Amino acid sequence: MSSSDKIGVGILGASGYIGAEMMRYVALHPCLDLRWATANRDAGLPVGDVLPNLRGFVQQVFLTPAEAEQRLDAVRVVFLALPHRESQDVLPRLEAAHPDKIWIDLAGDFRTPDAEGFRRYYGQEHRAPELLSRFVYGFTEAQRKTLSGARLIANPGCFATGMLLALYPLVASGLLSGRVALTGITGSSGSGREPSRTTHHPERAQNIRAYKTLSHQHLLEVEIFLESCSGRDLRIHFVPQSAPVVRGIFTTLFVPDEPKEVLREVFDRFYGDEPLIDVVDGSPDLRSVQTTPRGIVGVDGAPDRGSIVFTVIDNLGKGAAGQAIQNMNCALGLPETTGLAWPGGFV
Amino acid sequence: MSSSDKIGVGILGASGYIGAEMMRYVALHPCLDLRWATANRDAGLPVGDVLPNLRGFVQQVFLTPAEAEQRLDAVRVVFLALPHRESQDVLPRLEAAHPDKIWIDLAGDFRTPDAEGFRRYYGQEHRAPELLSRFVYGFTEAQRKTLSGARLIANPGCFATGMLLALYPLVASGLLSGRVALTGITGSSGSGREPSRTTHHPERAQNIRAYKTLSHQHLLEVEIFLESCSGRDLRIHFVPQSAPVVRGIFTTLFVPDEPKEVLREVFDRFYGDEPLIDVVDGSPDLRSVQTTPRGIVGVDGAPDRGSIVFTVIDNLGKGAAGQAIQNMNCALGLPETTGLAWPGGFV
Amino acid sequence: MSSSDKIGVGILGASGYIGAEMMRYVALHPCLDLRWATANRDAGLPVGDVLPNLRGFVQQVFLTPAEAEQRLDAVRVVFLALPHRESQDVLPRLEAAHPDKIWIDLAGDFRTPDAEGFRRYYGQEHRAPELLSRFVYGFTEAQRKTLSGARLIANPGCFATGMLLALYPLVASGLLSGRVALTGITGSSGSGREPSRTTHHPERAQNIRAYKTLSHQHLLEVEIFLESCSGRDLRIHFVPQSAPVVRGIFTTLFVPDEPKEVLREVFDRFYGDEPLIDVVDGSPDLRSVQTTPRGIVGVDGAPDRGSIVFTVIDNLGKGAAGQAIQNMNCALGLPETTGLAWPGGFV
Amino acid sequence: MSSSDKIGVGILGASGYIGAEMMRYVALHPCLDLRWATANRDAGLPVGDVLPNLRGFVQQVFLTPAEAEQRLDAVRVVFLALPHRESQDVLPRLEAAHPDKIWIDLAGDFRTPDAEGFRRYYGQEHRAPELLSRFVYGFTEAQRKTLSGARLIANPGCFATGMLLALYPLVASGLLSGRVALTGITGSSGSGREPSRTTHHPERAQNIRAYKTLSHQHLLEVEIFLESCSGRDLRIHFVPQSAPVVRGIFTTLFVPDEPKEVLREVFDRFYGDEPLIDVVDGSPDLRSVQTTPRGIVGVDGAPDRGSIVFTVIDNLGKGAAGQAIQNMNCALGLPETTGLAWPGGFV
Repeated sequence: MSSSDKIGVGILGASGYIGAEMMRYVALHPCLDLRWATANRDAGLPVGDVLPNLRGFVQQVFLTPAEAEQRLDAVRVVFLALPHRESQDVLPRLEAAHPDKIWIDLAGDFRTPDAEGFRRYYGQEHRAPELLSRFVYGFTEAQRKTLSGARLIANPGCFATGMLLALYPLVASGLLSGRVALTGITGSSGSGREPSRTTHHPERAQNIRAYKTLSHQHLLEVEIFLESCSGRDLRIHFVPQSAPVVRGIFTTLFVPDEPKEVLREVFDRFYGDEPLIDVVDGSPDLRSVQTTPRGIVGVDGAPDRGSIVFTVIDNLGKGAAGQAIQNMNCALGLPETTGLAWPGGFV
Repeated sequence: MSSSDKIGVGILGASGYIGAEMMRYVALHPCLDLRWATANRDAGLPVGDVLPNLRGFVQQVFLTPAEAEQRLDAVRVVFLALPHRESQDVLPRLEAAHPDKIWIDLAGDFRTPDAEGFRRYYGQEHRAPELLSRFVYGFTEAQRKTLSGARLIANPGCFATGMLLALYPLVASGLLSGRVALTGITGSSGSGREPSRTTHHPERAQNIRAYKTLSHQHLLEVEIFLESCSGRDLRIHFVPQSAPVVRGIFTTLFVPDEPKEVLREVFDRFYGDEPLIDVVDGSPDLRSVQTTPRGIVGVDGAPDRGSIVFTVIDNLGKGAAGQAIQNMNCALGLPETTGLAWPGGFV
Repeated sequence: MSSSDKIGVGILGASGYIGAEMMRYVALHPCLDLRWATANRDAGLPVGDVLPNLRGFVQQVFLTPAEAEQRLDAVRVVFLALPHRESQDVLPRLEAAHPDKIWIDLAGDFRTPDAEGFRRYYGQEHRAPELLSRFVYGFTEAQRKTLSGARLIANPGCFATGMLLALYPLVASGLLSGRVALTGITGSSGSGREPSRTTHHPERAQNIRAYKTLSHQHLLEVEIFLESCSGRDLRIHFVPQSAPVVRGIFTTLFVPDEPKEVLREVFDRFYGDEPLIDVVDGSPDLRSVQTTPRGIVGVDGAPDRGSIVFTVIDNLGKGAAGQAIQNMNCALGLPETTGLAWPGGFV
Repeated sequence: MSSSDKIGVGILGASGYIGAEMMRYVALHPCLDLRWATANRDAGLPVGDVLPNLRGFVQQVFLTPAEAEQRLDAVRVVFLALPHRESQDVLPRLEAAHPDKIWIDLAGDFRTPDAEGFRRYYGQEHRAPELLSRFVYGFTEAQRKTLSGARLIANPGCFATGMLLALYPLVASGLLSGRVALTGITGSSGSGREPSRTTHHPERAQNIRAYKTLSHQHLLEVEIFLESCSGRDLRIHFVPQSAPVVRGIFTTLFVPDEPKEVLREVFDRFYGDEPLIDVVDGSPDLRSVQTTPRGIVGVDGAPDRGSIVFTVIDNLGKGAAGQAIQNMNCALGLPETTGLAWPGGFV
């Protein structure tokens, strides 16, 4: 397929980790052609100078947002990988002017219809509340029908994706409700590209700590999405933890009242035919999905102690760019795994 | 104090990580003198050749166990850092012949009076069940009175210590009973010195996984000890997880029914005067205790979601050698922190 | 292209790190179809159970070598990723029976015509010396003409590739001869899949050490190849060092007598049009090539102190599987980067 | 010894990594009492809140520099762990007002008498050139006679210490002169406490790169010191490299013209009786000295390829705080290893 026959895409905010990974996924997709990518600080620089891994794959220089806006006609899909709270400033105007494009937001701005919840968890009034209810929440495995033909898609958060892979089948089956205990261990790339104390190598390299204990903002989208699916009330007790890995999230869910066999049956039913999700006995290795768009769900248990569900994803893959491509494929009517069928390394 | 005025100690199984750390702690103790240390494979080799960190501090060569047995008169305290299930083979005979010595076992052999539980969790019949009830379980902060003058001490397991630091004050206060959910994230040194698949650097360096889910053998000692303290039934749902750090255990306990303030008050009451345990708000950093005999307990919470208790210890410090020294100090009537009052690094 | 239209390949020794990476590269190649893969210990197991990263990509079970031998007709290319010194036992017979196949050996067995050198560096008599001179040494960038149509290809060692990328243009240009000082810092995957003391996570995770100082076996192939190209005598002083990264080799070459500008001009001339090799000013980041078949050469210098040449490769990529595919493409007459044009991640 | 009988010390700039480590070393020294510690940003905060590893060991709050100046009478020794180029602003005045104190500067400000060299390597005019020649350069093993009774001591840089441990005996013996090739692999704590791109965990954790190639500022002090000892001209080709370890420097020196046995004899002669330096055959492990004030020199070689000298130190130990204490002990006439005789861990 020649470049001009391909589907043009643009990326707003392409110099952060999620934006950079979006460019990698676009380069790996046989039907996509990157027409432009923006970056505030790096505008004017060749992409390959800022991101040497893309040298030879992306020839463009980073544009300013204003320059990109002039080139919206060249694209059919726009991925927004902007910092949280910026998408809501640009989307209303852009979307109104270009109602035919597909807009996929990777930030937390449009993941629920709940403006009040947004205020509570993100600490500010939502500035485009009228758009909230128009977005489809892109947890692909549960949403592909709704995603088909969608034009406004909110990509789930990385922790949210890890939690939902474990919670959704159980809640949808009526096996889980009320209080639920989970932990999520994340790699440092989840903190983004800006250096900070908690990602300073001397202080991170051999450290474990928790943060935003019981109050992480992804709780909002997970609770609202699951309640909308099941009509049940959920109260998620979630502890995010940081470990010295670069990529990935390892989620642990306590299911004290169900034996392993029951859970395994549920997950086989929900995910048995999923092309990007594996179901295994026991704990998966986080390593198995790093750098990829795939996820693994593991189930384990012990007599009289109930069960545990584990999920592993790459926070930049299934937790961001991979799922964004998956959602775009659904929206465009392409086979869902187009551009996503390549393996990562064993180590 | 001249070397001959010091208290002589011997170490059985000194070439493993716990035994090596015991030698480090003995070298740091102003009243102790290492008289001998055994190692099967390394017998005959200078300690400093096998463990270069001890060059200049330990002059001995490793002895065979048989050679050490000839020199029991030279010591007052023996630390057993043998592989699990070996202490029970040597202790009955040695202890009978030397009833005046202090024997501190760092393996899992004598941590409860429950021979049947041992069979279940350690997969074999106990070979010295008659000794079980004579041992004092050395979770120091709760046991120092019983430890005073003790001659047979079972040092708690590393995961057990991490769990007990969180659980003991809450169970003893009647705030916790029934089902309890915990995770424990451990460094690789907990697996010992023998290379294996799960500690092979290429496969561990960026990996997270769980193992012995809901069935780790330390559950035995924790449940039995807490029930003996409180008379309450506990059912611990514990998920051990491995992360790419070398030292330390980060424990996370869910307390869904109590607000943070109540827990903080309890921990301040129990640990406020403890010289080796700090209590803090929020999550501690595992890094803060690595290489040391110290522990930190952190408490956090959120409205309507209850609380979380975190504990951090060094698995080889408070989780092994540090607590062994602490217990020995109690048994000998020395100030409890003798030889333990030195700081680790910030990074 | 349907699977039956593709070029059939087989892999001997596919459960080690290099063999596993070969399977990943085969899965990424649009014209290749994996017909079988062997593994001694894992024979009979599904590849995806042993190597979860390949689940969904490789459906086969591992065969025994004997089973594979029955299926040689199904393949046109065989990659040998056996332990060093095993290829020479199987190749003479197999190659004689199947002279039409392409055999690409990734071990050290056939990299030079020098049987005496092999004895010295690999510690045993070569058992198939008659084959040595028939092999083409596959340092692709210098050998693509000879590789075209080749049937017996010896893939260079990973350290050798890192060294040659720096040395070859300088030696071929007559800028370097005599004594040459280099270091090569390697990740732990270079040690292979078998756990050992030097790859035991607690002892490797924060360690740096050197090994095989001035005597690494890859010196043999590098000196012989360069002397054959240039007619000049070289005496390479090479220090391999191990660092706590998983993948990659960072090579540092001292060129005390030439200014940076001269070197840059040489490397631009040799590699300016190379699709898989970048040339940059200053030090490259090892990270930029991890998981990929690419290499980067960096040049730096200072007044009166000459210059330094850096190279970075992935030991399993350009240092093994990537170069093997590159060589196969040359041998088959496919465009050289077929199946190799995909980017790695930024982190 | 009661706190008031001890020698009072103060630390300027105590919240950086080197200052924090100085406090740890002071806490470990039986004759020292920390009277105050300053920090610009953290002034007013308890030291234990900023540096949790020191909780229980340092009771003070951080002072402002102005507050500390009021308390100079309380101390006999001042350690300056300020950012480079700040010592020269405060020392002239302080030292003039308190000529009886011992001033030990850990920055690069006073390490040579060469103001012009300072300008070249540190990029600015020296602002206290009149003080330069009054300082003793504190590479302890070569300088202890000069250090005895010294009042102004410039502590060597971390890379400089690693290089000098290898170079000094060879240069002083006349075995080395002219061009010399070295690499030094450093951990991330050498970059200090301020987060930056090169220490951002996602980008550092699996990376190797070089920086300041052939132009690191420590060249200045090393070349000047060695020339002053030997009268010989040296031209050091030094490549600093960064690896994903937290602490330590691994130095590799090429000695192409001497056999290993000759070097080993020289190092045994120079360091055989050194209490803090070990000499070994082959490569040492960096791990063996991490967190400690010790260093190891290793020698290896191969027929016709000359020799290699390796040195390992902890950049914050022998490379900073440990050597500062060693130098202070010399200046005060205390036994040189007072407060320095404790082992690090094996892992």
